[in-house]
Amino acid sequence: MKILLINPNTTPQLTDRLMASARQVLAAGTELDAVTAERGVPYISTRSEAVVGGASVLEILAERHQDYDGAIIAAFGDPGLGAARELFDLPVVGMAEAGMHSACMLGGRFSIVTFAQALEPWYAECVRWNHMESRCAAIRTLDGVFRSISDVQEEKADLLVELAMKSIREDGADVIVLAGAPLAGFASIVRDRLPVPVVDCPQAAVKQVEGLVALNPVGPKEGSFRRPSPKESIGLSAALGARIAHSDH
Amino acid sequence: MKILLINPNTTPQLTDRLMASARQVLAAGTELDAVTAERGVPYISTRSEAVVGGASVLEILAERHQDYDGAIIAAFGDPGLGAARELFDLPVVGMAEAGMHSACMLGGRFSIVTFAQALEPWYAECVRWNHMESRCAAIRTLDGVFRSISDVQEEKADLLVELAMKSIREDGADVIVLAGAPLAGFASIVRDRLPVPVVDCPQAAVKQVEGLVALNPVGPKEGSFRRPSPKESIGLSAALGARIAHSDH
Amino acid sequence: MKILLINPNTTPQLTDRLMASARQVLAAGTELDAVTAERGVPYISTRSEAVVGGASVLEILAERHQDYDGAIIAAFGDPGLGAARELFDLPVVGMAEAGMHSACMLGGRFSIVTFAQALEPWYAECVRWNHMESRCAAIRTLDGVFRSISDVQEEKADLLVELAMKSIREDGADVIVLAGAPLAGFASIVRDRLPVPVVDCPQAAVKQVEGLVALNPVGPKEGSFRRPSPKESIGLSAALGARIAHSDH
Amino acid sequence: MKILLINPNTTPQLTDRLMASARQVLAAGTELDAVTAERGVPYISTRSEAVVGGASVLEILAERHQDYDGAIIAAFGDPGLGAARELFDLPVVGMAEAGMHSACMLGGRFSIVTFAQALEPWYAECVRWNHMESRCAAIRTLDGVFRSISDVQEEKADLLVELAMKSIREDGADVIVLAGAPLAGFASIVRDRLPVPVVDCPQAAVKQVEGLVALNPVGPKEGSFRRPSPKESIGLSAALGARIAHSDH
Amino acid sequence: MKILLINPNTTPQLTDRLMASARQVLAAGTELDAVTAERGVPYISTRSEAVVGGASVLEILAERHQDYDGAIIAAFGDPGLGAARELFDLPVVGMAEAGMHSACMLGGRFSIVTFAQALEPWYAECVRWNHMESRCAAIRTLDGVFRSISDVQEEKADLLVELAMKSIREDGADVIVLAGAPLAGFASIVRDRLPVPVVDCPQAAVKQVEGLVALNPVGPKEGSFRRPSPKESIGLSAALGARIAHSDH
Amino acid sequence: MKILLINPNTTPQLTDRLMASARQVLAAGTELDAVTAERGVPYISTRSEAVVGGASVLEILAERHQDYDGAIIAAFGDPGLGAARELFDLPVVGMAEAGMHSACMLGGRFSIVTFAQALEPWYAECVRWNHMESRCAAIRTLDGVFRSISDVQEEKADLLVELAMKSIREDGADVIVLAGAPLAGFASIVRDRLPVPVVDCPQAAVKQVEGLVALNPVGPKEGSFRRPSPKESIGLSAALGARIAHSDH
Repeated sequence: MKILLINPNTTPQLTDRLMASARQVLAAGTELDAVTAERGVPYISTRSEAVVGGASVLEILAERHQDYDGAIIAAFGDPGLGAARELFDLPVVGMAEAGMHSACMLGGRFSIVTFAQALEPWYAECVRWNHMESRCAAIRTLDGVFRSISDVQEEKADLLVELAMKSIREDGADVIVLAGAPLAGFASIVRDRLPVPVVDCPQAAVKQVEGLVALNPVGPKEGSFRRPSPKESIGLSAALGARIAHSDH
Repeated sequence: MKILLINPNTTPQLTDRLMASARQVLAAGTELDAVTAERGVPYISTRSEAVVGGASVLEILAERHQDYDGAIIAAFGDPGLGAARELFDLPVVGMAEAGMHSACMLGGRFSIVTFAQALEPWYAECVRWNHMESRCAAIRTLDGVFRSISDVQEEKADLLVELAMKSIREDGADVIVLAGAPLAGFASIVRDRLPVPVVDCPQAAVKQVEGLVALNPVGPKEGSFRRPSPKESIGLSAALGARIAHSDH
Repeated sequence: MKILLINPNTTPQLTDRLMASARQVLAAGTELDAVTAERGVPYISTRSEAVVGGASVLEILAERHQDYDGAIIAAFGDPGLGAARELFDLPVVGMAEAGMHSACMLGGRFSIVTFAQALEPWYAECVRWNHMESRCAAIRTLDGVFRSISDVQEEKADLLVELAMKSIREDGADVIVLAGAPLAGFASIVRDRLPVPVVDCPQAAVKQVEGLVALNPVGPKEGSFRRPSPKESIGLSAALGARIAHSDH
Repeated sequence: MKILLINPNTTPQLTDRLMASARQVLAAGTELDAVTAERGVPYISTRSEAVVGGASVLEILAERHQDYDGAIIAAFGDPGLGAARELFDLPVVGMAEAGMHSACMLGGRFSIVTFAQALEPWYAECVRWNHMESRCAAIRTLDGVFRSISDVQEEKADLLVELAMKSIREDGADVIVLAGAPLAGFASIVRDRLPVPVVDCPQAAVKQVEGLVALNPVGPKEGSFRRPSPKESIGLSAALGARIAHSDH
Repeated sequence: MKILLINPNTTPQLTDRLMASARQVLAAGTELDAVTAERGVPYISTRSEAVVGGASVLEILAERHQDYDGAIIAAFGDPGLGAARELFDLPVVGMAEAGMHSACMLGGRFSIVTFAQALEPWYAECVRWNHMESRCAAIRTLDGVFRSISDVQEEKADLLVELAMKSIREDGADVIVLAGAPLAGFASIVRDRLPVPVVDCPQAAVKQVEGLVALNPVGPKEGSFRRPSPKESIGLSAALGARIAHSDH
Repeated sequence: MKILLINPNTTPQLTDRLMASARQVLAAGTELDAVTAERGVPYISTRSEAVVGGASVLEILAERHQDYDGAIIAAFGDPGLGAARELFDLPVVGMAEAGMHSACMLGGRFSIVTFAQALEPWYAECVRWNHMESRCAAIRTLDGVFRSISDVQEEKADLLVELAMKSIREDGADVIVLAGAPLAGFASIVRDRLPVPVVDCPQAAVKQVEGLVALNPVGPKEGSFRRPSPKESIGLSAALGARIAHSDH
């Protein structure tokens, strides 16, 4: 089984972190490739950055989907997820949805814990898009600044553990979902410092997409995620334009 | 007061229809300009097309927002609305939200009536984004094909009236929201054939954005729509990159 | 266009405040008249006072609706709104619904800020009647006493700003809705002291009713707001009895 | 224990029907008196008629509450219920809430079945006011005309049974709530023709108010139903004005 | 009328407390018997203990239902309630549902107040099973240990009153529901120390089951609580196996 | 990794079907054992049968949990799931929750399709327990009788496909979840006859539990699924009593 991990952020160090974490849980026989966005921002935090990142995801999938059995959108918030699911036939999993659905089987309500306040509004929309409002105890964010997006987990380790504890005690979280590509791999480091299960989202995403591929689903020909009818377009990348026009292959 | 109507579809005839309808309700002193997207598809119908359209909206606003007091995103579904609201300081109104909020003051529940089945999944996500599920009686769509996107309202007039009647009788709609740029201006034509209020969305959008501008709101410095901190980016249009980098002015 | 502003409170000074604020945003060509209730309490704060105020609204509209294109119920809480909408053909807008729907186009969630604790339960029912629970971050009220209902905004200005700030910071409000006739006009005074948009409800109501009249809606003949069948009655005002009996004209 | 049954409709024959049904389930030691509204309409069906009826309920309670341990508002829809609960200290139960809460202990979801289409919009608001949307399978109404409000249950008996069966089979109702004063006593007549429990609302209301009185609750001094502070008023009935002014006793 | 109170806990002293409280509100003509579970735990606090307790309830009802007109499951959380309602024809009321439905007719939102933190998760599931989330202001629990389950109400009286006050003030509770068999009878003791109505659950359950029996409902032959078709079984108590096999009578 | 599949039904042929389906998707290195309940009914369909089945699940896990890394409750409806998750430290996954969470990553809304009407009420409670109401398009059941629980999928194959098609077309399902142990393995047979993804629940459960074990979660020491404090008990199986008393090991 071949899986493509798409990092919609333009920072290759984040891709490395994501891959390092994801590889720890790969099933025998799963091959995992990664790609980093070439258009967009270093790290997507907001709705407007997600619009840009979502477009990148579609362009990347248009180029490469035919070589894979499944794909992961590796930014919490899942930019372009609905669009990708409708436009391509392979299973596509978002890191946020994977983390949240996995968390739901480990407890009643989860908290999303992350390192920057800027992320909260977009994450809240993502929770709602997934109909998870009543299972999300809280979105908790650190409020200070940080030095480097690629090393924020080392810099803020203690504060993140404190924040998670606060959410367990005050918000009633049964599970902690560590959100954001920069926190990839952090779960295994803090696992023993927290009294409830902790979800590493790239790992959850790998296991969810492996699971979906194993279920061998057809690409939908009906329902709300059926592939749209062919359309002309202007100004899109060649591959994306071709996919939209049904002239790809 | 100067308002910019942004048509995220690439079809100029739709822009014309939108403007013709919008102009009928302009207050004295409101100037309305229009712009048609130069990247994207002729008519946005689905999630993936909306990702593309949302990016166009941001690019257009980055170019032109400084010349206007308010803006309208003139595609039902409101591609890029949340992103635009966070990135720019002027009031931005989506045609769908404007139609739905106006409808709520004319009755209890509204139905969204449109001409093509393909639109339903995206419109449903838009209803949910607006927290309007419990006020939306139904989304009703015609299921046949149509000849031309710019003349579909003439071609399908009788079928659309029938469909609206069906939704009034079977879904319990108190108000009909005619959705989609191609139905701009159709409300005044069918007004007397329907026993409940009918909302023309470009007109609702004009009145809503005029109203918001009259309230003279500050651009938010806090809350979930505060402007994101500056970021570098790669590969975006110059104006959009500058806006994201806070290097615009 | 002729609009009637109905103050269901019996205090003429509140009517003056409402009119002063409303006039600032009138479109060219809109005429606005006001009427003050002659039955009821000086200032409606609770469910029982709203029953009394709702009856006054119906009596006033029965007398005067034929001379107007639209009407405003100018007490936050909107006493009698559903009843008025069903009994009369002209667009009728409540100050609360207008404020809340306008706020929804300026941000994700709004807080309702007002000057007296007594108002909270009735306002909460109003939020729910409008299906706005998930968009209302909080209802925040001052808890002290005040000297005079008609000057409470001057007396409590600083405390109200503090309360709004608290709600922005603690409840996550994107927009502040200043609620209650006594706060009419207060938005423009505090606008620059708050980091998010502030909604003045009489102004929102004027713009919303102007918008609805511009849409030129039919009086519903079907749906849940169709006019009730004629009925006899005992003991009502002559005009209201006649309207209910369909013997008015 | 002394209970007052208030019929907010002006038709004494409906009061007789209500009392006949209610008396069948009175506990030993419960005395039940009735009063018929002297202001309003023969039979309340809509929001506007309910505003009028709610005012009558408050006037009647202001006159008579001191002689009773509990009261019933005997019109489905419960006009004035929240207002009465806040203004008076004795337990007050609405016929609709009593029927719905009782039904919830007999099954999962109930259907409200009644004889006239005109009632649906108001009943739907009542269901929502009680937060019962997810337990209400449907509101089903007959659509023809009827000869007399006081004999409609005999005239429409077979159609009502058919309608209830339809709702059991198509809407998945576990319980049938027969709604509206004119259907008082009808449950015992059709009980054996329906395969699920049937709730007679005046009977449910008697048992609920008896139960509440037995619990011996204090009149709330805090919370959202605390008695409002004293206020002056103009133009109300002497007793209601005195109650609002705290000058009653 | 004969009612069976089933205590699913194995502690006879709790049965005594429940009966002492319940007897204070029995209507003339109601006979109340009690039975204490012989399998299970001294006091049910959690989901797993409730599975065990639910099985006991079914076994007890299988033995004894034919001698009674109604039954009460006398543990807050209502173990086995849905199962009992589907398997037996007599009205069965849970102490939690009875307390909550009664509370809904005394105010807008209630708080559940109890003596041990361990109970919260199970109680929260019970609130949700009853669709009462939006009417439950909070579940508040004491966090210390206690000496004896049968005397905890005396030991913790002051702390429980404080906790209830806190919930009234901070959570906005209109009514206090005292939860858990060990708090039976406590309402009448603290009634005058609290400014809002207090519900004693065994008393509420008695009045609710008396009310349901008075409505004389048929055992459902359709709907979601119809009796299941006969089935063989292995290893159940003789009476329960016979009831499931339809070989009881 | 060692996984225990627990069939709470007493029919060994169903265990065989479950295992045959589950084995098709086992990752290299996963060992899967099965156990069939020795107390209960041949096939659990209703709330009361689920109480019995839930108790069996706890007894089986008490005996065997120490030999496994994860467990599956292999009856749609997930009897005893919450209880098992709180009482034992290993990840436990229910077949229903696994099917539903997997379906959520393949589309917007799923329909649950099964072979017998009797299952609907219990399944509906399971959907709600999982907070999946808004993602469940419908629960569709065949209404005829069937010959044998272990061969019902062969007997009813065509009817089940028709029913799924109906739900796709009429309910708007994006995904079909085939529910119930007797339909294990049916997805791969009908996969090509349906235009949307089909979820086989035992397969989904295997992949979900493998995924959770890979995340290596701690057994919760806080939160709503922490292990209950030790308690004495009467009449339970030795292993279950010991687990509840914390005297197991």
